[in-house]
Amino acid sequence: MPDKVHTKYLLNEDEMPKAWYNVVPDLPKPPAPVLHPGTKQPVGPDDLAPLFPMALIMQEVSADRYIEIPEPIRAVYRQWRPSPLFRARQLEKALDTPARIYYKYEGVSPAGSHKPNTAVAQAWYNKQEGVKKIVTETGAGQWGSSLAMAGAFFGIEVEVFMVKVSYNQKPYRRHMMETFGATVHASPSELTDAGKGILAKDPGNLGSLGIAISEAVEMVAKSGGKAKYSLGSVLNHVLLHQTIIGEESLLQMAQADDYPDVVIGCVGGGSNMAGLVFPFVGEARRKGLKTRFLAAEPMACPSLTKGIYAYDFGDTVGMTPLVKMHTLGHDFMPAGIHAGGLRYHGMSPLISLLHDEGIVEAQAYYQRACFEAGVKFARTEGIIPAPESTHAICAALEEAEAAKREGKERVILFNLSGHGHFDMASYDAYFSGKLEDYEYPSEAVDAAQHRLPSVG
Amino acid sequence: MPDKVHTKYLLNEDEMPKAWYNVVPDLPKPPAPVLHPGTKQPVGPDDLAPLFPMALIMQEVSADRYIEIPEPIRAVYRQWRPSPLFRARQLEKALDTPARIYYKYEGVSPAGSHKPNTAVAQAWYNKQEGVKKIVTETGAGQWGSSLAMAGAFFGIEVEVFMVKVSYNQKPYRRHMMETFGATVHASPSELTDAGKGILAKDPGNLGSLGIAISEAVEMVAKSGGKAKYSLGSVLNHVLLHQTIIGEESLLQMAQADDYPDVVIGCVGGGSNMAGLVFPFVGEARRKGLKTRFLAAEPMACPSLTKGIYAYDFGDTVGMTPLVKMHTLGHDFMPAGIHAGGLRYHGMSPLISLLHDEGIVEAQAYYQRACFEAGVKFARTEGIIPAPESTHAICAALEEAEAAKREGKERVILFNLSGHGHFDMASYDAYFSGKLEDYEYPSEAVDAAQHRLPSVG
Repeated sequence: MPDKVHTKYLLNEDEMPKAWYNVVPDLPKPPAPVLHPGTKQPVGPDDLAPLFPMALIMQEVSADRYIEIPEPIRAVYRQWRPSPLFRARQLEKALDTPARIYYKYEGVSPAGSHKPNTAVAQAWYNKQEGVKKIVTETGAGQWGSSLAMAGAFFGIEVEVFMVKVSYNQKPYRRHMMETFGATVHASPSELTDAGKGILAKDPGNLGSLGIAISEAVEMVAKSGGKAKYSLGSVLNHVLLHQTIIGEESLLQMAQADDYPDVVIGCVGGGSNMAGLVFPFVGEARRKGLKTRFLAAEPMACPSLTKGIYAYDFGDTVGMTPLVKMHTLGHDFMPAGIHAGGLRYHGMSPLISLLHDEGIVEAQAYYQRACFEAGVKFARTEGIIPAPESTHAICAALEEAEAAKREGKERVILFNLSGHGHFDMASYDAYFSGKLEDYEYPSEAVDAAQHRLPSVG
Repeated sequence: MPDKVHTKYLLNEDEMPKAWYNVVPDLPKPPAPVLHPGTKQPVGPDDLAPLFPMALIMQEVSADRYIEIPEPIRAVYRQWRPSPLFRARQLEKALDTPARIYYKYEGVSPAGSHKPNTAVAQAWYNKQEGVKKIVTETGAGQWGSSLAMAGAFFGIEVEVFMVKVSYNQKPYRRHMMETFGATVHASPSELTDAGKGILAKDPGNLGSLGIAISEAVEMVAKSGGKAKYSLGSVLNHVLLHQTIIGEESLLQMAQADDYPDVVIGCVGGGSNMAGLVFPFVGEARRKGLKTRFLAAEPMACPSLTKGIYAYDFGDTVGMTPLVKMHTLGHDFMPAGIHAGGLRYHGMSPLISLLHDEGIVEAQAYYQRACFEAGVKFARTEGIIPAPESTHAICAALEEAEAAKREGKERVILFNLSGHGHFDMASYDAYFSGKLEDYEYPSEAVDAAQHRLPSVG
């Protein structure tokens, strides 16, 4: 019998989960090994040591179901965690649906999204190993501003390669990183061989996440051990840190005396979706529940619905290890949709595996439909969602409409991964009729197949 | 013995206060009457009826200590209330101060500030009396976006006159209002006689809150009863709705097993400061406590520290009733500081009275010192404050430094009235060395004296 009264479900600090959840032991089969980009042989922890502190590498390959969250990380989490879980009562009323809609809201973090969950953890583990500087990339800026904040908290220098189109379009995100004390470069830049090579061929290149990753990794590789690299999505340890979202949500759904039939997240690299969904996946697999899991991706960059499940590089130039994932090809340049955080050619290997196994469904959405859903959400629930998060809202609305057509109850839970305060120009473009819908060209799939690295 | 563990103090929805607190019965003397701008005689409720719904007029003149919050307003409040009260542990550590610093954070509202506390209440009371359209003004846009949101919730059309300099500088706030469905005009506009008159004399006029109020009031007066007016600060009923901030804080300080020695708020019209402070003022007066109350205002617009305590108009043209308040003169044009919400010539009559009686202290701050305090706050606590709120932070830091000098404990509570996500260009200006400090010219005080309306 679901709770009939409350709008949101809060946990106090003492109720904050004390461990992250690792989905690996609950997978139907083990993840494929990560391969060295040169030898194409499985990498060991030492191969990754130039990039990451050892504690994070051990998390990357861990098979433990729960990994304790160190108290100093919990202390910082308490600045905004546990985050609220809302029942979307006003939205339900406007939709006149028999569905019950819940959303977990990660926009309450100071950086405005889920990204600080891993930024704080990564910065702390780097600090523990004496790292003085971290280099990273960012697309729309949610990741970069989160790592910049975490760096400020722990006294670590942060340098960010920001995709040039966003650097130009979203100066506020850049100012935010600078307010936290970080240094921000537009990518491609003249600071790395990767950047110089791309600019030599194409001086007007506006950048991509893949290029920015190449630049950040190169800078770290050439730092002589003085800097480490940090990634805001895709990798196992990043998804692990995000699972506090789902662990909290399990407790909050219990507070609401309810349980989701379908759990939804938008996906770029996959970290916010995994963060909410994985703890529910684990529970469903252990208890034999029929919970559905839905990944909402952009039609312009549909790695799950259109990509190939194969080994590929994480970056454009080909410097990173090879991971088995759904990919559109490491040199795929997505159309300039406003959900900058979803413009990545690949998908987290763990989500890719779960999708390949039929456990995670995927659906692609046009950006105009997503903004329409975002505006409907803002006018009922008040929160203006990030363009990325509107994909999850769009999926949730479709589920609610389906429930209405069928005249059946349906319990929907989605991750509202961030607010759109830094994306208001995108809303203006939507209202002005300047937004275009882009579709991934089907011929590109064949082309991508031929560009994938051979793994022998 | 203060709590040694927690970072924030939360209340669940069931603990949300059920009444607003009215400071009037706890004042040392009754407020001065509001005068009609034509007759200079005290106005009655009927005189205000063309502008406001009767329920709000009755709140404006109420002498009841507590006024119940109607359940439909509480239902909307629950979207973000109760708001968290934080112990600034990271900031305290960075300052190495014996002071304990607490802040109440109102930036968790969907519009990003305390303004929805009254916007939702005003929209609901208007809705109850069948009002279809509300007209208002906004400076930096925090008020306008809050009323736009409240209008969306209750199906009321909202039209906003936005001070032109902000309309041009802060397009994101305008996009936010439009996302909620409101119509926004740059003020001065050609839509009203007030606007036309000002543009005829000065075509490049960039506007002020006083001018925008004149335009909004004129539009309502000419609507033939079809629209009502709404103000986001200054008036008694507006401050009343904000007292839920302080009522919650009383409960949360008790959770923390602590009590403030000094309670601080930034002041423009006075509503966020009153919202936090008034319930503590009432308690101090009823229990004989020596709690200090500090209003932090900008050096460029120092109505409390430099203004005259006299009857003046609320708007520039002279259409509103006359209220007794601290004023810099209704036609004073403040310098273009970045804390747009503090650029108002007057001060709430209730705060003015408390200041005149020596109960509320006031201190003025330069904007560069405020931004410096804001950056220090962001790098320790994570939250990037609104330029307005940095004035309260600046005052809190001074109190913490004083405690350190004296080697004594001091418990400081301030209102962090909003976040700065829409003000990042101001931070960029600060870091680029483009910010200037402005001081209110002392000769302007004499000039203002002569421009005040005669009340016989």
